[in-house]
Formats: sequence, structure tokens, C-alpha cells
Amino acid sequence: MSQPRVAVVHGPNLRLLGRREVQIYGETTLEGIDAQIRALAVDLDAAVEGFQSNHEGELIDHIEGLPGRVDGVLINPGALTHTSIALRDALAGAGLPVVEVHLSNTQARERFRRHSFVAGAAIGTVAGFGARSYLLGLRALVAHLRDQN
Amino acid sequence: MSQPRVAVVHGPNLRLLGRREVQIYGETTLEGIDAQIRALAVDLDAAVEGFQSNHEGELIDHIEGLPGRVDGVLINPGALTHTSIALRDALAGAGLPVVEVHLSNTQARERFRRHSFVAGAAIGTVAGFGARSYLLGLRALVAHLRDQN
Amino acid sequence: MSQPRVAVVHGPNLRLLGRREVQIYGETTLEGIDAQIRALAVDLDAAVEGFQSNHEGELIDHIEGLPGRVDGVLINPGALTHTSIALRDALAGAGLPVVEVHLSNTQARERFRRHSFVAGAAIGTVAGFGARSYLLGLRALVAHLRDQN
Amino acid sequence: MSQPRVAVVHGPNLRLLGRREVQIYGETTLEGIDAQIRALAVDLDAAVEGFQSNHEGELIDHIEGLPGRVDGVLINPGALTHTSIALRDALAGAGLPVVEVHLSNTQARERFRRHSFVAGAAIGTVAGFGARSYLLGLRALVAHLRDQN
Amino acid sequence: MSQPRVAVVHGPNLRLLGRREVQIYGETTLEGIDAQIRALAVDLDAAVEGFQSNHEGELIDHIEGLPGRVDGVLINPGALTHTSIALRDALAGAGLPVVEVHLSNTQARERFRRHSFVAGAAIGTVAGFGARSYLLGLRALVAHLRDQN
Amino acid sequence: MSQPRVAVVHGPNLRLLGRREVQIYGETTLEGIDAQIRALAVDLDAAVEGFQSNHEGELIDHIEGLPGRVDGVLINPGALTHTSIALRDALAGAGLPVVEVHLSNTQARERFRRHSFVAGAAIGTVAGFGARSYLLGLRALVAHLRDQN
Amino acid sequence: MSQPRVAVVHGPNLRLLGRREVQIYGETTLEGIDAQIRALAVDLDAAVEGFQSNHEGELIDHIEGLPGRVDGVLINPGALTHTSIALRDALAGAGLPVVEVHLSNTQARERFRRHSFVAGAAIGTVAGFGARSYLLGLRALVAHLRDQN
Amino acid sequence: MSQPRVAVVHGPNLRLLGRREVQIYGETTLEGIDAQIRALAVDLDAAVEGFQSNHEGELIDHIEGLPGRVDGVLINPGALTHTSIALRDALAGAGLPVVEVHLSNTQARERFRRHSFVAGAAIGTVAGFGARSYLLGLRALVAHLRDQN
Amino acid sequence: MSQPRVAVVHGPNLRLLGRREVQIYGETTLEGIDAQIRALAVDLDAAVEGFQSNHEGELIDHIEGLPGRVDGVLINPGALTHTSIALRDALAGAGLPVVEVHLSNTQARERFRRHSFVAGAAIGTVAGFGARSYLLGLRALVAHLRDQN
Amino acid sequence: MSQPRVAVVHGPNLRLLGRREVQIYGETTLEGIDAQIRALAVDLDAAVEGFQSNHEGELIDHIEGLPGRVDGVLINPGALTHTSIALRDALAGAGLPVVEVHLSNTQARERFRRHSFVAGAAIGTVAGFGARSYLLGLRALVAHLRDQN
Amino acid sequence: MSQPRVAVVHGPNLRLLGRREVQIYGETTLEGIDAQIRALAVDLDAAVEGFQSNHEGELIDHIEGLPGRVDGVLINPGALTHTSIALRDALAGAGLPVVEVHLSNTQARERFRRHSFVAGAAIGTVAGFGARSYLLGLRALVAHLRDQN
Amino acid sequence: MSQPRVAVVHGPNLRLLGRREVQIYGETTLEGIDAQIRALAVDLDAAVEGFQSNHEGELIDHIEGLPGRVDGVLINPGALTHTSIALRDALAGAGLPVVEVHLSNTQARERFRRHSFVAGAAIGTVAGFGARSYLLGLRALVAHLRDQN
Repeated sequence: MSQPRVAVVHGPNLRLLGRREVQIYGETTLEGIDAQIRALAVDLDAAVEGFQSNHEGELIDHIEGLPGRVDGVLINPGALTHTSIALRDALAGAGLPVVEVHLSNTQARERFRRHSFVAGAAIGTVAGFGARSYLLGLRALVAHLRDQN
Repeated sequence: MSQPRVAVVHGPNLRLLGRREVQIYGETTLEGIDAQIRALAVDLDAAVEGFQSNHEGELIDHIEGLPGRVDGVLINPGALTHTSIALRDALAGAGLPVVEVHLSNTQARERFRRHSFVAGAAIGTVAGFGARSYLLGLRALVAHLRDQN
Repeated sequence: MSQPRVAVVHGPNLRLLGRREVQIYGETTLEGIDAQIRALAVDLDAAVEGFQSNHEGELIDHIEGLPGRVDGVLINPGALTHTSIALRDALAGAGLPVVEVHLSNTQARERFRRHSFVAGAAIGTVAGFGARSYLLGLRALVAHLRDQN
Repeated sequence: MSQPRVAVVHGPNLRLLGRREVQIYGETTLEGIDAQIRALAVDLDAAVEGFQSNHEGELIDHIEGLPGRVDGVLINPGALTHTSIALRDALAGAGLPVVEVHLSNTQARERFRRHSFVAGAAIGTVAGFGARSYLLGLRALVAHLRDQN
Repeated sequence: MSQPRVAVVHGPNLRLLGRREVQIYGETTLEGIDAQIRALAVDLDAAVEGFQSNHEGELIDHIEGLPGRVDGVLINPGALTHTSIALRDALAGAGLPVVEVHLSNTQARERFRRHSFVAGAAIGTVAGFGARSYLLGLRALVAHLRDQN
Repeated sequence: MSQPRVAVVHGPNLRLLGRREVQIYGETTLEGIDAQIRALAVDLDAAVEGFQSNHEGELIDHIEGLPGRVDGVLINPGALTHTSIALRDALAGAGLPVVEVHLSNTQARERFRRHSFVAGAAIGTVAGFGARSYLLGLRALVAHLRDQN
Repeated sequence: MSQPRVAVVHGPNLRLLGRREVQIYGETTLEGIDAQIRALAVDLDAAVEGFQSNHEGELIDHIEGLPGRVDGVLINPGALTHTSIALRDALAGAGLPVVEVHLSNTQARERFRRHSFVAGAAIGTVAGFGARSYLLGLRALVAHLRDQN
Repeated sequence: MSQPRVAVVHGPNLRLLGRREVQIYGETTLEGIDAQIRALAVDLDAAVEGFQSNHEGELIDHIEGLPGRVDGVLINPGALTHTSIALRDALAGAGLPVVEVHLSNTQARERFRRHSFVAGAAIGTVAGFGARSYLLGLRALVAHLRDQN
Repeated sequence: MSQPRVAVVHGPNLRLLGRREVQIYGETTLEGIDAQIRALAVDLDAAVEGFQSNHEGELIDHIEGLPGRVDGVLINPGALTHTSIALRDALAGAGLPVVEVHLSNTQARERFRRHSFVAGAAIGTVAGFGARSYLLGLRALVAHLRDQN
Repeated sequence: MSQPRVAVVHGPNLRLLGRREVQIYGETTLEGIDAQIRALAVDLDAAVEGFQSNHEGELIDHIEGLPGRVDGVLINPGALTHTSIALRDALAGAGLPVVEVHLSNTQARERFRRHSFVAGAAIGTVAGFGARSYLLGLRALVAHLRDQN
Repeated sequence: MSQPRVAVVHGPNLRLLGRREVQIYGETTLEGIDAQIRALAVDLDAAVEGFQSNHEGELIDHIEGLPGRVDGVLINPGALTHTSIALRDALAGAGLPVVEVHLSNTQARERFRRHSFVAGAAIGTVAGFGARSYLLGLRALVAHLRDQN
Repeated sequence: MSQPRVAVVHGPNLRLLGRREVQIYGETTLEGIDAQIRALAVDLDAAVEGFQSNHEGELIDHIEGLPGRVDGVLINPGALTHTSIALRDALAGAGLPVVEVHLSNTQARERFRRHSFVAGAAIGTVAGFGARSYLLGLRALVAHLRDQN
């Protein structure tokens, strides 16, 4: 694999990062995260493309188009993690390696945030490190993709 | 009733049919299913119109517009079956006979696929026969519509 | 497969069809259903044999004798659907394709009618269309049997 | 606060008000409700703007844009009340006072309508008074906004 | 109603009455109970016929034949109370008034004896008075039948 | 035992009998029931005294005073059946035989009416026969008391 | 209806309002609330009478006496909301329109405060607006009473 | 604090102590317990006042009056421990340190006696030592009160 | 005890042993098992008699007749293990030592196979060793019977 | 009993007392607690020996050795309270009176701290009074031991 | 296989066998059981080595060392059966056939003793026969090992 | 912070890594992982020390000694993740930042592996990437430690 291609997908409410509830989600904005991801991608010699939507349907539409275009998916499904079987099915159907990331440590929050439907379609999870969860997830995914080749 | 009119509605992730997880969902594509449905409709002297969306909201928008235009709804709600009370309410609100179909036998899969919110708004269900579930569902719906007239 | 052979099995309380609770189960009698099944079997070039019992044990005895004599089973397990693991095991043990049918839409009734033990041993389910559920189930089963040959 | 500004948000299936299931939801249309809201807003010396969508994602997009433009949110989340953690997070993230309203008395309906995810992000709830729930909710919200200033 | 006709139905394990676990079920035998029932029927000017089976299926067969022959059913379903939806359906399907009786006070025993499927098809229940439960149940049923005429 | 003495205890909301929800609870008033009980007591050669209260505390006070004055308790605990452990403890503490009666067949009503805390302190239950439940319960209790002597 | 008559009923612990846990329940005293209610009643041309008790039994006694004297009930059941089936039955038995109010937003508090037995006997609910919940509830009830006439 | 003042509160059924179920609750009477409490209070240089009621409402009335008159509450809520949120709210509302005591070891009895609503309003619990639970609880409360001063 | 007499009872679906699902249940037929049991009985100087039925009722009839004729029961209840309270009651009523055996390790299979109603009436269980479970169970039962004498 | 001998057993994490989370567990160290216990033992004329371990196994080893050497056990099982059936069995097996103590009021903390396996093997519990819980527990245990002699 | 080698592993609290709760666990000591196991091993021409610990960690350490040294494991996990996933993982990780034995019939005891984590790593279970459970388990394991060779 | 010091803690069964169930846990040995961790630590200019134990108690002893010696904890609690509240309390009591890592994606495995007690004491989690989970966790922890200084 010359250069792994990774789709970064942000779920609902993440456009507000760094502007809302900073005590839970940290102060970095989504743009800031994307910039950090791109910088790390250069270091790792990987290609990344980003997408954000508050719409479950748009996320599924987007994921449908990924096979053939990228080699893996790095996704923060936001609150859909806990409620969307359709998103899980879209990821499973895409047949690509998926890494699930969360800004907060979801296992340590309200009971309704502890179950992940997405986990059933993912190889692994990184949660609780704020914007850094994405960077660790990208490392994990790129390494996984290189392992397979 | 000279010719029953039926809306065929496909929920999330069905655009990928025949391309993903063929061991669960079979090898027929959505286009193939639609062609089979149209062919059967001719045999049954019924009119059909199709719609697919990955968006819960678009599905509800679409269902809102059905009363007056069709006489019944044949729907495969996909994973929204298990999570969308809004879709159930849309179907119940439309006041049309609804037949629910599933490609796989949902009662025999993961626990979270066993409950259907849609069932509460449907006259019956066909599940487990792949693309053929739609054809059996269409037969059931058209016969039901003819019974009422 | 020259002519698929199908066992039609009726569980408890179905002898009363058309005579009790017609608002739930419809007005067709069991004899009427059997006649409709035989007529459709002629159309589909399939052979059918019928059996009804209110006894779980007799149903299991009967199913034990089916392998070698028929190619598939069309069963309305009645209320045993929800309570009999022994019936499920008998069907699974027979090693034949099974289609489960219900007169009413069991998913939309009392909570205790929503779970099916039989589903775990069946390829698919048709529910909610009264006597017509059997006819659709027969179509599904015969088509499935022809697919395999 | 010279004049409190309130966003009125209507969730899925509310466009059909007055046309469907009038025994549950009453006979007033959504336009009728909006007119009553505007009339009361004049009485209360408040500014209101309305929005309806059947799309969870559009509702979240809309709520994202509210801070700075309005002082509070009056929302009838429809069936998303019971299923959408993403909507709850959007409301919590907006940092505005939220009043939740329902046409029917959801606590007295099916079990799956008794839990509200939105409540965790709201100051209060009005349910069961049909179109009047909105008017009472508007009074509550405007009074709350005046209290804070 | 000149003389109400009542079917007395005994479920599984009741043939052993008076011979097993007398500290729970009392010392009267089933024959003794039947004799007491017949004596009370004479006093109440009612006709009774008895039936016992350890087979769910035979009980259902028997109940199927009751409409037209009797006016009401007095049943001690034994342990089938807690497990047989088929028996419930048979009783509901018979369309006759049903009185459910138990020798022991089932609500005060193991958790799995506290739920009754039969109750959903019965007008009332008498439990905990040993053989006397039948006599009280017969009084209740005969009085109910006279009320209706 | 020359003449058994029985305390009849009516719990909350029973003063309204015959005046409210007559389709559930029947048309007899509490005074009517008490008159029927007294008449039957004469037939059975038993002494009865009655008490009604809407107050859990008054019921407990009353029950505390019963030992020594009566030989058994006939109680319709009303809705306290399902919620009052204190009432159960009062009855258990009194050390007298208790018969629990209900006008409606509580096992066949809402889920929250199916559990009885009182059952754990009672010898038996009669439910579903309207005012007649009391009369059957009195017969059961008087016979039980005579058995013991 | 010349002038609607409304009974205002306050459940346990409300006598302490404005003196305890003001961060949850607000600073207005019960006397203050009653004064505000009377003032609004004058505006709405309605008659109100008030009652408070910490005793479930007294509340039920009081509700028993309301039919014929008032046209509707405005009740804050306090903690009995979550535990008293007897109170629910009293309200249902009274046959009057009931509006349920809460000072705090009970759906957003501890899990054991989320279920309301009273809701099953009420037309609607107002919760979370402190003393203002009563005023909004009174508006809702008076409007409902005028609608019916 | 010159002399801590403690209210001792006894809930339902405790008037029977020493007279009922002595194998569970011990042989000391309530008067005996009160005498022991008073004797220990003298030793500890504390003032005590006692109160018993079988009425939840009277207990709440009593607790309402305690602030200002005593410095802490020693309560055996009896069976209300497990069912009364209103009692919990009364204790929490009083704003006084509360010690909860039980004669028996409630955690080791029936499942429905294992949960305590009162615990949420108490600083600590003593259970299982019969009458001595009160004495240990008094020591704990008096020491706690002295610590705070 | 000169020679212990043991009834061997086989529940539903066991006639198919060695012919169905051999990967779960092993390759020995029921006749083969019976032969092994008889051979071991000779070694252990015990008398055995066998019975198989797919009918819960016949099993109960059979068990009713065992007291007096045998000294203990070796039973593989098949799927009735998990669903039949009537079978449990029959075994408990027989008053004989019971050993429960299973071919597969039921605790390690589907959740619905993990609970045994029969265990409550048995002295012990052997599960998971295929046909050998019977032989071990026979050893256990015969040794137990000799211990008692 | 000349002088009761008591084993004081401290479970996991208690070595850190007074150094960690002092807002929950108080500021006294384990050494401080042991000193207070020894001082009180002198007052009560009892002998005490102490033991602490973070190892479930060492605690069980230790408890195994106690019978014959001491007359009772005072134990703070720490978090093993909620998870260790083995510890419960060790205490039950020792056949000595056990008093369970907790520094915090476990019933008022997280849900997973509310259940105690140890309670089933203890005569009573003292919880919520910090270091003082031990002293109260020692008084309870010594008094219990003297009662028995 | 010339001579199968078997590790016998005893979990917590088994050192006390024959000395504690003999009505549940029998009168044989652990030494007695080990002697019986060795005697039977000679008969079966198998080699056995024993190990007991009250420490989950020591049991896991021990099991880690078994592969290569023995051919199978006979384990009585004691109370760790119900709580230790780590023990289950150790057994599964060892890759040896495991037979699980229990002295008492755990399925017939308290609810918390009915679930076995170990079962998921075992080929079968013997429970309820006291010391004899080990002997039957050893037979089962040795026979299983010989089958494989 | 000149050089962050990190304790790496491995829970039960991890000594077997690379030797057991390699399809789940991967082929790297624990020594291999430790070498990779040390190498990465050099790159990150951090100091690491390692510890492994199969004993919950030793892990707690070890964690007790960490404060003052290291700045953070990187822990793979193995199966104790799901069962040990004591381990959670030890980590919380140490007052150090904790990162929890797992080799497999625990959220996507058996139900009993989905809950983590440790999460409540950790800042974040990395799961599913085999040995790489440790490396990502170390990066996360070191970055977190540098952020704080």
C-alpha cells in the first residue's frame, strides 16, 4: 500500500466543538481538529478527506460512496453511536476497516451513552482524549491498513 | 377498485443490495428488485411507484405525500424498523394499509433487530425471503386492497 | 426437483378458525384454508399434505417423521410459537427448510406474542394476512425449494 | 430584555396536524397553531420565528444557528423526544433555555412514549393540551426569559 | 336459564391430590373434590361434568368441544397457568365465562407461579383454599351465569 | 368455635362503589355490600364488623386492634394491595387468618395491578366477581376458621 | 358554563415551599402560590378552592367530595405522583378533568421521579416552571372546561 | 453545642414490637426501647423526644415541625423505608442530620426490603441489632452533632 | 436395598439422537444409549426401565405411575427443562430422588437454555458429556439410593 | 463469656484511609481507626485482633483460621461487599457472628454499591459514620456476644 | 494416550469441607475427597495432581502452568464460578478440556448461584452429588481424553 | 515536567499473550509488548515501569504504592475490568491520571465484557488494536501529562 486513504467522518453536533460545553469536550474547534488530522496524515504518509453532517441519512449516503475511494474510515458518530442501527449497518456494509473515536470517555458518562451500536462494525475504539482521540485513532487505522498490506 | 396503486418505500442502506453482505441479504440489486416488483405489478394489474432514501426525514416527507396518490404502502424500513417511532407515526398518520417487508428473518438475528416499531402501524409482515419478500408483500397488499373494495 | 413436497402443519386452536374471534383471525375455516392451499399447490406444481394438532407432542412426533417424505415445512405454530423450545428443536432437528406463518400480525399484539422460538429454526415468516399468510408462505417455500435445485 | 426572541421548533409529522388522528392530536392545523403563537407573542411582547422539519439533521442544523439570534427555544420534538440523543445534545449545546411541549399527554400513552431524552436539556414541559400546549409553553418561556433579566 | 351447565376442568398433576405434598395442596383427593363439587351442584341446581388431563393438548381438545354443551368453565389449570398461551387462547376462543381456581395461594409462592396467562381469559379467580377453592369458584360461576339470564 | 368473628376491612376508594366506573367495579354500593355480608354472616352463624378508610395509617391502626377481638380478617385493600408493604406487615403482625378480595380480576388488568404485597400475608384470594367476591371470601374465611377448631 | 369551579390540591411536603431546597423548588411559599392562583382565577373568571395535605388518605377523602362541587382538579401530587395508585384511582373515580403540575421538571431528575401514576388519570401535565406551573395549569384547565361547554 | 436535641421517630407497625413476630424483631416493646433511649440520652447528655405513627402523613407533618426544635432525627421508617418518596422528601426538606435504623438486617431479607428511599436523605444506617439499633444510632447521631460544633 | 430400581425417562426430540445435529448431540442413537444404560445397570446391580415421549402429558402420566414401582428417576427432560413447570411439579410430587441429565452443556448455550425448572426437583445434574451423561447420572443415582439404605 | 474476642477485618483499599478521597471516607487513617478500636475494646472489656488485606484470597484464608480463636467478626469488606460471593461463603462457613461496617452510606451512593453479598452472612450493618462505624459495630458485636452467654 | 494426566483444582472455601455447613456440602473433608480421587485415578489408570487456593490469582497462576504438564482439568471453582471472568479466561486460554464440578446443585439454590462464567470454558458439568461430583467428573474427563486419542 | 513517569500495569491472563487464542488477542507476547512500550517511551522521552499480576490484590497493592513514584497509570485490567470494583477504587484512590487499554474491542464481544468498572476512574480508553492499544494509550497518557504541566 503506497499511501493509505482515510475518510474522516464527524457525526451530529460536532460543528460546535470548542464553542459549547468545553468542560466536557475541550476547547479545540472542528477546524482545529481537521488541521491536526491533516498534519498527522502528512507525517504518517496517508491521505485524508473529511466530512461532517448532523443528518444520519447524509452520513449513510456518504459512507455508501466510500468503498473504492478510501481504504478505511475514522468516525466519531456523536450521539448516533447509541441510537443508530442504520449507521452501523452502513459501516458494516461498506466492508472497510472502521475506527470509532469519541471526545469524552463515554463509558464513564450517563448510562444511555455506554452502549455503542457502531462498535459491532469497528475494529477498535479510542475515547476520552478530546481532539487527541482522533489523532490516536488515525494512527491506529493507518497502522492497521499497513499491516494488511 | 379498477387498479390498486402501491407506493414501494425502501429505507436506509438498501441501495447497496447485491453488493454488500450477500450471505445475509442475497445477490439481487435494488434495481433488480424494483424490476421484479414492476413485473409482478403488471401481472397483478396494479400500479407501483418506488422511493428509496437513507434519510428518516425524507422517508417521512415522502409518506406525508402519499395519501390521495396511492392506496397502500409496501415498505422495507431497514434498520429504522427498530429505532424510528417517527416513521411509525408517519405511517400511522397516513391512514393507508401498510405491509412491512424484510430481506432477512429479523426475528432470528441479533436481539436488537427483533423489535419492530413499524409493526404497530402495519397490517402484516413478510421477512426472510430476500428479494422475494417484496413480491410476497406486494401480493398481500394488492389482495388486501381488492378485498376492501 | 420435479415436484416439491410440502408438509403443512397447524398448531393448537386452529381447528376453530372461522368460528372464534373472527375480528382477529378472519372468517375462513381451517378446511377452507386447506382447500386454498391445495388449489395453490396445483398451480405451483407442488404436493402438499396437512396435519393439525393441539398437542405439542403430536406435532413433534409428526415433524420427526417428515424428513425423507417431504422437502419443506409450512407451519403455523399457533401459541406454541412463543412458548415451545421443544417444537423449535424438532424443526431444527428435521433439517428441512421451514416457513413460519401467522394469521395475525403477532408483532403488533400483546407483548407475550412478540417473541418467536420457532423463528430460530425458520428461513422466513409471513404474518398478519389471515388465511392468505399460508398461501404467501407456500409460495415462498416452494420458490425456495426450487432455488436449491 | 426589551423583547424576548423565541424560536418555535416543530419536529417530525407535525405538518399533518389537524388532518390525521384528530382524536389524539386535535383538529387545529400547524398553520393554525403558528397563527395562535404569533398572536400570543404580540400580547406578550415577544418575537417568534417558526421552523418545522421531519429531519433530525435539519432540526439540529437549525438549532446550531439559534444562539445569538434568539433567547429561548420552544420545541415539540414529536417522536424524536423518545429516540434522539443527538437532538438532546444539540439543545444542550445551544446553551439556551428550552421548553418542551407535546400535544398529547405522553406519560399516559404507550410505554415507549414515556421517556424523554429532551427533558434532560429542558427547563420544563407542557403536555396534553393539544395546540394549547404551545401557548402555555410560550408563556412559560417568555416569563422565564423576563425573570432572568 | 333453567339449569346452568358447568364444565369442571383439572390440569396436570391434579390426579395426585391428597397423595402428594399435602402440606401445600391439602389432603382431599381429586375424587373427593369431584364428589364435593357434584353435591354442591345439586344444591345450586346446576349440572356439572368433569375432566382431567396432564396433556395441554387434550385440555385444548376438550375445551374446543365445550361450546354448545356447557354454559361456563371452572378450571384449575395447574402449572399450565403460568406457561400455556395455547390454553389461554383455547379458553378465550370458546367464548364461555371462565373461572380460574387454584388450591394454593399462587401469588404468595415462587416468583414463577405469580403470573397467570389464563387470567386474561377469565372473569375471576379463587386461590388458596385447597379443595374449597373449587366450591367457591362453582358458586361464583353459577351465580354469574344466572345473572346473565 | 361457637361463632367465628370476622373483621371486614375496606381500603381506599371503596366508599365510591356503585357510583364510579361501574363498568369495572359493578353497581352495588359499599352499603349494599355490607348489607349482603351481614345477611350471609347470619346464614353462616358468624359475627362481622366493618371498617373503611382511605388512609393506610388508619387501616394499620385498625388492624393493630383486631387480635383478641376477632378471629379472622376479610380485606379488600384496594390500590394499597400493590404498593403498601406496611399494610402487609400489619396483617402479618396481627397473626390472624386473612382473606384478600378484589372486585375486579386484578391479574387481567394493567401490569401495575398484578402484584400483591398483601398476598404474602393471606391464606387465599378471591378476585373478579364484584360484590360477590366479598361473599365468597367470607365463606372461605368462616370455613377456614371452623376447620381450625 | 358561567364560571368554572376549580379545586386546587397540594400533596405532601408542599407546605414547606419557599423554605426548603430553594435551588430545586424556588422561593415562593405555598401561601404566595395560592395568592397568585386566586389572582389569576379572578382574571380568568373562575372560582378556586385550595387544599393541602401530607396524608394520602386525606387527599383521597377530599377528592371523593369534589364531584358536584367543582368542575375540575388542579393537582400537584408531590412525591405521591410516583407511588400512589390509590390517588390515581381516586382521581379517575371522581370523573372530573384533572391537570397535573410539578414545580420541578420531574422527567429530568432521579429515575424514580420519572414515572407518574397520576398521568393515567389526567388530561395533561405542566412541569418545571416553579410556582408558575400552577398558573399555567390553571389556564389549561379553565380553557379546557370552557371548551367543553 | 451545650446539649444536642434529637427527635426519635418510629414508623408503621412499631407499636406492636415485642408482641408480634419476635423471632424477627426481638422481644423488647416500644416502651422498652424508648426507656433505653432516654437512659442512654442521659448518659450522652442529649435531649430526646419521641413520636410514633402508622400514618405516612402524620410522620411528614411531624418532621415538618422539627427544624428549630431539634438538631437531628433518629428514624426507623419501618416498611415506609422501601415505598415512601414523600417521607424521603420530608426528611431531605427538614435540613437536619438523619440517622436511619432498622431492627432487622433488611439487606438480608426479601428483595423488596433491600432498597431504601430514606437512605438518600440520611447520613448513615444501623440495621439488624434489634432494639440496640436505636441505641447505636443515637450514639452515632449525637457524636455527629457534637462534631459539627 | 437389595437392587435399586431406576426409571430412565427421555423427553422430546431424543428419538432422533445420532441422526440429527450430531455436532451438538453426538452420534450415539437412543437405542445405543439405552443399551449402554442396561449394561451399566448390570454392573451396578440395578434394575432399569426406559420411557421416551415427545408429549409433556405422557411424561407426567408416566411419572405419576412411578412411585412404588421404582426407587429413583434418571431424566433428560430435553427442551421441557426450560419451559415446563408441570413436569417439575410431577417430579416433585412423585417424591423420588431425581437426577437430571443433558447431552450438551446447557449452561454454555443460548440464554434460553440456561434456566432449568427441573433442577428445583432434582438432587443433581450431569450435562455436556453426550450419551455418557446418562451413565454418569445413573452411577450418581444408584450410589445415592444405596447411601440412603 | 469472660472476655469476648473479636477479629477486626479490613478489606481492599482501606490502607489508604485518611490519605485518599477524604470528602467521602473521612480523615482518620487506618492506624487511627485501629487505635480507637483498641481503646474502645478496653472499655468494653473485649479482646481485638486486626487484619487488613487487599486480596480476597488472603481475607478468606484469614477467616478460615478464625473459628476457635475469636468469638465474632467485625468486617469492612470494602468493594468486595458488592462482588465477592466467596467472601460471603467464607464468613458463613466460619459460623461466627459477623457485623458488617462501611465508612460511607453505601445505600446512598452509586447503584453498584447498593447490594451487599456479605449481608446474607451478617447479623447487622453499620454504614455511613466514617471511622465511627467501626466503633458502633464493635459495640453491637460485643453486646451480641454477651447476650448469647 | 498411555495414561491421561488430570489436574484437580479446588477453588475458595473448599479447605473447610466436612467442617462447615454439612447439611449443604456433605461430611467428607477435602483430604477425603482427594484420597477418593486418587483411588479412582488408579482404577482408571490416570495420573492426578491436586491444588487448592482461596485466591483467584493463584488459581490463574496455577492454570497458566498446566498446558504441557496435564491433559485436562477437573475444577470446582467454588463461588468464583459466578463472579470470575478472569478464571474463565484462564481456563479458556489453557486450551485443555475442562470439567466443572459442584458439591451442591447450584441451579436449585439462590439466584446468584445459577449463572456460571466457567461453563463457557468447560465441556460439561456435574453438580449436586457432594464429594461424588468429583468422582463422576473425573470419569467424564478421563473418558473424554481417551476418546480423543 | 522534565520526563513523565508512567506505570504500566497488566492484569490477569496477560502473561499468556501470543500463546493463547491468537485469533482474538494477536501474536505478540507480553515481553514483546513491554519492549515496544519501552522503545516508544524513549521516543516520547518518558520513563516507564511495568508490572503484571493475575491477583486482584497484588494489583491493588501495587497501585497503592504508585503515587509519588509515577505521574500516571496505563492499565490493561483484563477480565477484572468487568468485575472488580476494588480495582476501580484503588485507581480512583491513587489520584493519578489513568488510561485504560484493551487488546480486543470489548464493546463488540460478549455482553458481560461490555461494562467497565475501571472506566469510572479513567480519563480515556483505547480498545481493539491488539498490542498497539498500549502504544496508543501511552501516547495519550504522556500527552495528557505534558498538557497538565
